[in-house]
Amino acid sequence: MEGKNFLRCLFFIFSAVLLMLFTIFNIPNPLSGTAELIECSTNSAWCTSKNRILRHPTTASLHHDHTADVPHHPLDPLTIQEMNKVQKVIKSFFENSVYSVHSLVLEDPDKEVVVEWEKGDPLPPRKASVMARAAGKNYLLTIDVESGELREHDTSNITGFPLVTLEDMQKVMSAPFASAHFNRSIAERGVDINDVACLPFSPGWFGKAEDGRRLVKLECFTTKDTANFYMRPIEGIIIVTDLDTNEVVEIVDKGKHIPIPKAAGTDYRLSAVNTPIIKLPNPISMEQPNGPNFVIEDEHLVKWANWEFHLKADPRAGVMVSRAKIRDPDTGVLRNVMYQGFSSELFVPYMDPEEAWYFKTYMDAGEYGFGLQALALDPLNDCPRNAKYMDAIFAAADGTPYVRSNMICVFERYAGDAAWRHTESPITGTEIREARPKISLVARFVASLANYDYVVDWEFHADGLIHIKVALTGIVIVKGTSYVNTNQVKEDEDIYGTLLSENIVGVVHDHYINFYLDMDVDGLDNSFVNVHLQREYTNGKSPRRSYMKVNKTVAKTEKEAQIKLKLYDPSEFHVINPNKRTKVGNPVGYKVVPAGTAASLLDPEDPPQKRSSFTNNQIWVTRYNKSELWSGGLFAYQSHGEDTLQVWSDRDRPIENKDIVLWYTLGFHHVPCQEDYPIMPTVSSGFDLKPVNFFERNPVLSIAPYVESELPVCKAAASA
Amino acid sequence: MEGKNFLRCLFFIFSAVLLMLFTIFNIPNPLSGTAELIECSTNSAWCTSKNRILRHPTTASLHHDHTADVPHHPLDPLTIQEMNKVQKVIKSFFENSVYSVHSLVLEDPDKEVVVEWEKGDPLPPRKASVMARAAGKNYLLTIDVESGELREHDTSNITGFPLVTLEDMQKVMSAPFASAHFNRSIAERGVDINDVACLPFSPGWFGKAEDGRRLVKLECFTTKDTANFYMRPIEGIIIVTDLDTNEVVEIVDKGKHIPIPKAAGTDYRLSAVNTPIIKLPNPISMEQPNGPNFVIEDEHLVKWANWEFHLKADPRAGVMVSRAKIRDPDTGVLRNVMYQGFSSELFVPYMDPEEAWYFKTYMDAGEYGFGLQALALDPLNDCPRNAKYMDAIFAAADGTPYVRSNMICVFERYAGDAAWRHTESPITGTEIREARPKISLVARFVASLANYDYVVDWEFHADGLIHIKVALTGIVIVKGTSYVNTNQVKEDEDIYGTLLSENIVGVVHDHYINFYLDMDVDGLDNSFVNVHLQREYTNGKSPRRSYMKVNKTVAKTEKEAQIKLKLYDPSEFHVINPNKRTKVGNPVGYKVVPAGTAASLLDPEDPPQKRSSFTNNQIWVTRYNKSELWSGGLFAYQSHGEDTLQVWSDRDRPIENKDIVLWYTLGFHHVPCQEDYPIMPTVSSGFDLKPVNFFERNPVLSIAPYVESELPVCKAAASA
Repeated sequence: MEGKNFLRCLFFIFSAVLLMLFTIFNIPNPLSGTAELIECSTNSAWCTSKNRILRHPTTASLHHDHTADVPHHPLDPLTIQEMNKVQKVIKSFFENSVYSVHSLVLEDPDKEVVVEWEKGDPLPPRKASVMARAAGKNYLLTIDVESGELREHDTSNITGFPLVTLEDMQKVMSAPFASAHFNRSIAERGVDINDVACLPFSPGWFGKAEDGRRLVKLECFTTKDTANFYMRPIEGIIIVTDLDTNEVVEIVDKGKHIPIPKAAGTDYRLSAVNTPIIKLPNPISMEQPNGPNFVIEDEHLVKWANWEFHLKADPRAGVMVSRAKIRDPDTGVLRNVMYQGFSSELFVPYMDPEEAWYFKTYMDAGEYGFGLQALALDPLNDCPRNAKYMDAIFAAADGTPYVRSNMICVFERYAGDAAWRHTESPITGTEIREARPKISLVARFVASLANYDYVVDWEFHADGLIHIKVALTGIVIVKGTSYVNTNQVKEDEDIYGTLLSENIVGVVHDHYINFYLDMDVDGLDNSFVNVHLQREYTNGKSPRRSYMKVNKTVAKTEKEAQIKLKLYDPSEFHVINPNKRTKVGNPVGYKVVPAGTAASLLDPEDPPQKRSSFTNNQIWVTRYNKSELWSGGLFAYQSHGEDTLQVWSDRDRPIENKDIVLWYTLGFHHVPCQEDYPIMPTVSSGFDLKPVNFFERNPVLSIAPYVESELPVCKAAASA
Repeated sequence: MEGKNFLRCLFFIFSAVLLMLFTIFNIPNPLSGTAELIECSTNSAWCTSKNRILRHPTTASLHHDHTADVPHHPLDPLTIQEMNKVQKVIKSFFENSVYSVHSLVLEDPDKEVVVEWEKGDPLPPRKASVMARAAGKNYLLTIDVESGELREHDTSNITGFPLVTLEDMQKVMSAPFASAHFNRSIAERGVDINDVACLPFSPGWFGKAEDGRRLVKLECFTTKDTANFYMRPIEGIIIVTDLDTNEVVEIVDKGKHIPIPKAAGTDYRLSAVNTPIIKLPNPISMEQPNGPNFVIEDEHLVKWANWEFHLKADPRAGVMVSRAKIRDPDTGVLRNVMYQGFSSELFVPYMDPEEAWYFKTYMDAGEYGFGLQALALDPLNDCPRNAKYMDAIFAAADGTPYVRSNMICVFERYAGDAAWRHTESPITGTEIREARPKISLVARFVASLANYDYVVDWEFHADGLIHIKVALTGIVIVKGTSYVNTNQVKEDEDIYGTLLSENIVGVVHDHYINFYLDMDVDGLDNSFVNVHLQREYTNGKSPRRSYMKVNKTVAKTEKEAQIKLKLYDPSEFHVINPNKRTKVGNPVGYKVVPAGTAASLLDPEDPPQKRSSFTNNQIWVTRYNKSELWSGGLFAYQSHGEDTLQVWSDRDRPIENKDIVLWYTLGFHHVPCQEDYPIMPTVSSGFDLKPVNFFERNPVLSIAPYVESELPVCKAAASA
């Protein structure tokens, strides 16, 4: 649908829409309770696309009718049938009055139960964890799926609100149009109201005055002549709206002198781009005609090479990787590496203190749902041809389950690199040239948080390494300006960013993605070791003056594991099992190998920094606690920062030889440049979890080299 | 050849070998002067292997008889015919007395000449730069290829020696066996002298006592029962030998109590590994049946997508990338990015001050030749199936040219990632899902410096990014120890590393690889800008307390561009052309995006640190000077550190709006772990050169998406 038609529709049938919304969200859904397949929620227009299946029929191999799904593993997500049962309990709890479900997911069984469970055992009781709102109050419920037993948790001491729903957002988008002030202001700018689209942005939290009301700040764009309306901001108008009542609370209206940036050159769609194509006429493809080397058992258990792990979609985290185990090449035994890992929270502060921009300090997982915003992948272009796809089952705002198709892809990757190699020097007279290809397994999803796209990869290597990578792409959110050339900007004036095009400033911002990594190296109880590297003087005992010495310190408590990285005071950071040693006596371990480091420069007492205080350090280690999963807090929306990783860690609990959780934050400073306009080339960074004396020796010593005769036989495409 | 036979041969025909060596190196080669193809030097046993061609006939596509090569570009390397002419001049200069050629390469024409030159123009005069030794003296010669005119440069003020030759190394390997002391000591350790191989290691420089003599320190291993003799050190014996005379100067003999580590489990060759293969039965391959999208014109000019650059092998640097230009999508014009880039020096200090280890502070480019040690690549396993190969022509110690086959591979890479992508949120009602595959071009070589292998990639992306990556693999050099378990190590004892296996310590060390990057962004004259990010307070003018502000400072002189990276005091580092701006007024530029940072912790006055003082900072910018190419000094072997990047930069020349050179150092701290035994899984890191306001907008906006019908049609291999 073109933006113009969409807006016209929104505007003219506004009251009809409101009626519809109430019908859809607030009265019982005629489909719920049945076992019918609900392809998409009523509001997830995208996933009704027939494009997917038509373009690439082979990707459908993992698809089936999810209505018959049954859980096979204690960590399997709730099925459609289970969600339907839970929905009935929710409705009954709210006595059929108005409510909204903000999260409906499996409540994990206790870790001890999951660890003890083996295939063939009966599943532990299935429970749902529900975040809901009704009559202006947050609810946190645990519901037993079979018995329907419901337990309500006290949330009175928690500030903030649950993440917004897609329905919240869609509903509030129309709110500004009911305001005469807004319509007048748009008209004064010479913009046709029919071309205007307003998007809801989380308001952060900046003081008590904002408490008690679930607010959103809408920013508007003209969709005229481009699908990339983000490049056409109507600068300076912020419509503060109540998410529960849809009432406009305040309109900030400042930027009337700022022109709307032009549409020309902003549309990035293939259909809109007429510039010459970069010539790469000969396709290059990752081919695997015999099929993949992995299997996905029971929908979620991925087995590849020496790895085995449980993979599932999660509306808040995107994906959750659980029970990651690797087979020891010497003993054949599967050994525990990580109990669970996922992206716990994001923090995207923009660096502009002006009225229409200061609040932009997004926490994308806790405010929007990193998984809820992860849409269907584009086969061939988001993932290679040999990828297989996995769907998600999420709950709509009334609790009705729907299928988010192709949300995750899983594929083997060969990028032309070697896993290891050596050529012996000819001077030794020994003719040796041995190299082995590096093949890995990637699990990927892409979250599109309004303008930005985050590609998150969990990449498993046969040598035991787990590489966790985040790539940023999509569209940089921009600010309108009256400037068309930098020579108009006064010497001392700060435009808070880069002039990307005429009337467009790309505002400086950061991205932080915090990962929860519940390492269980060969068992639950682990320790965190700071392997410190420091200059040591020889004091005349050697022709060398100095060398670098290793000093290992085991962190006793959580505060000792609040780590700020320092280039000139470096350490390695090991999670070891002090109870298990290799044959020569090294404790078995995994290390976190930092990369993509950027540190938040905000004042520690600045409200956004307090809320996302997980960026106060790059590495943290906490005592395992089932309730401490979301580093920005459980109810992150408008939170004050009282339920964060910093707060938990400051309890300073003992962490030596205990069940511990490692937290790592990837960071990016982004000073936009013209190349980021009108859509941004991918920038990525990742960190590693890497075995360190975990194996007795190189675990991929025995990997097979490529031999010509075993590789696929390919010819050019028929159409070429 | 098995190690045992090789040593027996060496020992028994020792005098015969000596005679042969003199024959080969010091009397005129009957082949030289002819235009015959010399496949390999007499000492490069490896490259005679027929394995290469047999295993993968298609890789031979770029091969041909190099004897007929003629230069086409001012930067083309010397051809066989040219080298033969130069060799004659050298012989004549030394009046047929004993000499050795340590480097024989093109002397680049002046930069102005190269920049002015266009295809079709006559080539500027071809000159050779020669480093040679005769009668204990260093020679630095410039020889005009056509006229034979020779110019001798004064080297009397330069400490150090030219890099060792393969012939130096092979010759000196036999020296210890002539020593009765050595034979006795080996016998006392119960090692059969026939199993012993000694390898030459550069001695570093630790004081005036070492001056005036070209020394090498030999370390010995037993080759019994393993091809991986590095894992069987005869610890504590160091044979200090004179490289010019082959005379044993001193034998350090200390480690008699240390057992020789066992052979079992050390051999990594496919033929020796019997453990179960990790099961990946279904091959995955990078397939491009229509052929590549790049061409290599005139042997060296690579054209791919929007990139064009000159690529050649270099005995010291490995590869040199020159005249890198990218086509502007708006104007179609090829724009200069980099005049020349290459790995200038390496520094690998081991962190053990004991007598047999303190000197291990290798400078692999200046001491050994990063390119000389780059051997033939293993098709399919070092590079993907779609790679094309490029040969090198190097000079043997007598000046005779030889062909190093398959030294470089060039291939397009598709690793399953997106160049950019965006999905529009369903709440907007706009159905958009656009993604484009990321395809890049890689030029790769692998240098095997005795035990270690360095994989160096220059990766060009269509969005203008150049990613320079170094991967470390091969074999960690180890130290013998009497310990078989860490519980035997006393509380306060430092073993300078990790016990990797019984009687084996992996010694802590660093790797630094310094890159010379002569950026010429849209012209010769550029400036270096520190784009500093710092906390700014709003002082009550905003609900936000703080934000991150950008402050740009142009470096006036070299000292202002000596950069130590700081996580909490971050900057971007731009090389801009202050004379050229985008339409909206930003100066065009490229930025260096650091990664893989490790800083040297050695004392700045420690001799190895002074010699490799390029590691004193991560980033440097110097005024372009044709003679400042090698950051550790031209004659790096046993140098004192008087001719280094630090010295040049300390001249503090003006660099604003001048022809400038950027230097970047990748660093790795390596605390070995058991997984590195007996051969090390690849570890890599890289940094980027990235356009920043170089283009008016995203230059890959118009790249085409993958369409199923255009991809190759593949089936499983016939043999599968």
